[in-house]
Amino acid sequence: MYLTQSLHRAMQQHPERIALRCGSRQRTFPELGERVARLAHALQKLGMQPGDRVAMLSLNSDRYLEYQMAVPWGGGVLNPCNTRWSAAEIVYALNDSESTILLVDDTFRAMAEGFRSQATTVREVVYCGDAEVPEGMHGYEAILGAAEPAPDALRRGDDLAGIFYTGGTTGFPKGVMLSHANLCSVGQAARSEGLASPGGTYLHVAPMFHLADIGMGMPHWIEGNTHTVLPSFQPEQVLATLERDRVTHVLLVPTMIQMLVDHPAMQLPRDLGALRTIVYGASPISEAVLERAMAALPGVEFVQAYGMTELSPIATINPAWCHQAEGRARGKLRSAGRATHCVEVRIVDADDQEVPRGTVGEVVVRGPNVMQGYWRQPELTAQAIRNGWMHTGDGATMDDEGFIFIADRLKDMVITGGENVYSIEVENALAQHPAVLTCAVIGVPSDEWGESVHAVVVLRPGQSVAVADLVAHCKALIAGYKCPRSIDFAEALPLSGAGKVLKTQLREPFWKNRQRAVA
Amino acid sequence: MYLTQSLHRAMQQHPERIALRCGSRQRTFPELGERVARLAHALQKLGMQPGDRVAMLSLNSDRYLEYQMAVPWGGGVLNPCNTRWSAAEIVYALNDSESTILLVDDTFRAMAEGFRSQATTVREVVYCGDAEVPEGMHGYEAILGAAEPAPDALRRGDDLAGIFYTGGTTGFPKGVMLSHANLCSVGQAARSEGLASPGGTYLHVAPMFHLADIGMGMPHWIEGNTHTVLPSFQPEQVLATLERDRVTHVLLVPTMIQMLVDHPAMQLPRDLGALRTIVYGASPISEAVLERAMAALPGVEFVQAYGMTELSPIATINPAWCHQAEGRARGKLRSAGRATHCVEVRIVDADDQEVPRGTVGEVVVRGPNVMQGYWRQPELTAQAIRNGWMHTGDGATMDDEGFIFIADRLKDMVITGGENVYSIEVENALAQHPAVLTCAVIGVPSDEWGESVHAVVVLRPGQSVAVADLVAHCKALIAGYKCPRSIDFAEALPLSGAGKVLKTQLREPFWKNRQRAVA
Repeated sequence: MYLTQSLHRAMQQHPERIALRCGSRQRTFPELGERVARLAHALQKLGMQPGDRVAMLSLNSDRYLEYQMAVPWGGGVLNPCNTRWSAAEIVYALNDSESTILLVDDTFRAMAEGFRSQATTVREVVYCGDAEVPEGMHGYEAILGAAEPAPDALRRGDDLAGIFYTGGTTGFPKGVMLSHANLCSVGQAARSEGLASPGGTYLHVAPMFHLADIGMGMPHWIEGNTHTVLPSFQPEQVLATLERDRVTHVLLVPTMIQMLVDHPAMQLPRDLGALRTIVYGASPISEAVLERAMAALPGVEFVQAYGMTELSPIATINPAWCHQAEGRARGKLRSAGRATHCVEVRIVDADDQEVPRGTVGEVVVRGPNVMQGYWRQPELTAQAIRNGWMHTGDGATMDDEGFIFIADRLKDMVITGGENVYSIEVENALAQHPAVLTCAVIGVPSDEWGESVHAVVVLRPGQSVAVADLVAHCKALIAGYKCPRSIDFAEALPLSGAGKVLKTQLREPFWKNRQRAVA
Repeated sequence: MYLTQSLHRAMQQHPERIALRCGSRQRTFPELGERVARLAHALQKLGMQPGDRVAMLSLNSDRYLEYQMAVPWGGGVLNPCNTRWSAAEIVYALNDSESTILLVDDTFRAMAEGFRSQATTVREVVYCGDAEVPEGMHGYEAILGAAEPAPDALRRGDDLAGIFYTGGTTGFPKGVMLSHANLCSVGQAARSEGLASPGGTYLHVAPMFHLADIGMGMPHWIEGNTHTVLPSFQPEQVLATLERDRVTHVLLVPTMIQMLVDHPAMQLPRDLGALRTIVYGASPISEAVLERAMAALPGVEFVQAYGMTELSPIATINPAWCHQAEGRARGKLRSAGRATHCVEVRIVDADDQEVPRGTVGEVVVRGPNVMQGYWRQPELTAQAIRNGWMHTGDGATMDDEGFIFIADRLKDMVITGGENVYSIEVENALAQHPAVLTCAVIGVPSDEWGESVHAVVVLRPGQSVAVADLVAHCKALIAGYKCPRSIDFAEALPLSGAGKVLKTQLREPFWKNRQRAVA
């Protein structure tokens, strides 16, 4: 099994079908195949050797999908950059992965020019915009036009398909190594769970660097379906695209669903009859939002997917029926679902023994979706994958039918707007400010984001600093969404006997009478 | 991915669901899991070491499915015996695979006692019937009851799951080695092609030793569905079971579909409303039979699967819509379909170059479904799998949408009642008769079986033999279905300049004005 296999198959079976739509551009599958083969050759001419990492830093576009196919076609390994990260974090990931080629679009061109000298392994930069090609960069269409179609290098099975960086518990991003078999196995499971249908159209509006979008796009690649691309989430544009392109499947986070159904443009007469399924992840959907969404989008099915980058990224699926009358009556709506096809999920205690049903334990996952490991981090890998089971760090219970209910996050993490923020990354950034003695970062309730990042800071004796200055200090080091939205100053942090910060105690006043969003 | 994974998942997700139904017996998934774990231990106590081959010679039963799960659970490798083969052929397969344990039912108990001394590697025989346990054998329920549940040995991925013997072009059966990943990949593809639905019931009525039934059962294992078992094909019993067990999916060959819809019992009032899909294989369905079947079973979808044991066994699927108005109008009914998910199919010439659409060439297949090879036959393996492509020996054309149309069989083979008979196997048997000088075996048209086996025999000078005696001679050596249904005597065989028998010339008078059934 390999990523480009579905492209070969679609070229054979659907020679007239539109493969990609983005803005005013569209390509059939044979056109896409030709472009992918040429881009593969162009990357080889720029020095891409078998196994070399090739990075892309860009908003969503059709060229992002061409990149995702052309790199493995030409023998390389993907390294899609997190567009929300700071330059420092992106440079860390580029250097850590030793990426040799970087593709950038108009949005990130200036940032790339700024960090170019620090990204020491990047030898070539390809500009994917449509304006004049900046000096020192190669034009995407120019190199593609000058290349011949390359034969498919047929990287497959356990060959590394990509390195996908995620925030790290150690404070540094970790490179999650996923193989072709990892990604294809999840694509097959998602396909057979009904997350693609023959002849459908998938809308890429969630960020394409993220495994959530890559994973949810996979069943549509396998099926040979059409991919429609929007650069970012704008409710009006999403609604217009759903209608115009007769989109059948889309991945959104609950916040996006809420923004969509509550938007005034939702009131306009519109034919969204093609839309079959909205997949959401990152957190459970509230019953109120679901009610409004179901009323606004009659006939559309809602499906939750739970997982993480390390799981390619799907572990469990909460199917449509759990969102409907019977499932809700049986209490399944707040579940993260149960193990998808060919995947096993257990809830275990600290000794890795399965706990009785209904008891909180850690979610562990075994199957063809489990990553190969963290890039050049054998110790972290050995901590995460034990006896073949990926330890998610999420606490959950399981009911008698195998449905899991996320009960708590065992890792110290804030989930804000669907993004995971490890507290330690924020704490490390804050601690670098000369006025800060110590600090603790927690998630506090946010109507808009589920949680927002909150810091409790203890200043060095005699020092003072403005909240805005501390935030600005953080923004230079880490992604904007990771920076504290609010900061409290304290005399000291509550500590356990062992000297561990008692975050539960810090969280308590914020979460009194509220349920913490926990998936 | 591994065979027993689906059992673990079903035990967790469907603890109350019936896993197996057979006659008066039924088991829930937890009951099945318990029995499988005990049988695994029982087989270990009988000496099954990791990787040991364990054979079963039996009509369909629930115990056959327990065997299919317990052998890998206990660390062994399956070797299901072809129940239509002669004792000599079965002994060949047992010895070639070095099977150490053999399970037999009432139907084959006497045969097994007869060949026991020749099956030199078989150390233990387990009797799977319900009568008194024969001397020298172990009782199935007795050893199961005396065992403790064993832990799953977790054979998986590229580990060998089974050796499946098929007729050989060399005149000897070949052992097709299929891994856990081979079988699971096809199960996933079949699942996502819609060949199982959540909460469905699959009827095992095609023989369980055969990859067609194993392959079509796989998506139901993956889904955690119910398996209903009939020992053999009896139209009335099939109809009664379809109704009583609310069967949703069944695999039949076109001959069985015809026998079913033309049976008087079909006229009885009956609720077959649960039946969604009839999968058929081995040959295309005639439009007349399809018409009658569709009229008799309104709402049932017909799907063709094409492949071979070496492909685990599915390569292409001709979906339901190709059997309905639009597909028939577009000429898709006589197609064998197109590449299933994550599988590639090409039509190539003798130099392995793809031929233009519409040109006859050999069907070659690449994907996770391609066997690991022929057991201890590296040369045959290298001939069959070249550059990762399995060479099927079938001639076909491909249309502009990737549908293949089987045009001829490149291998010298007769397909009778859905079974492949290599001519050379029959010729070898005939040639062992002292009166036979030379002979040639071809397929001739049969209304009942599609083709039937016909022999043209040249006798030694001065010799004579009755047709019935020649057939009886063959029956002692090869399976009944492989023996000639008719024999002509000739003075000589038509030969090419190179001395090759011109079978086309022999076939011509029989096939004048008839289309050869060719899939």
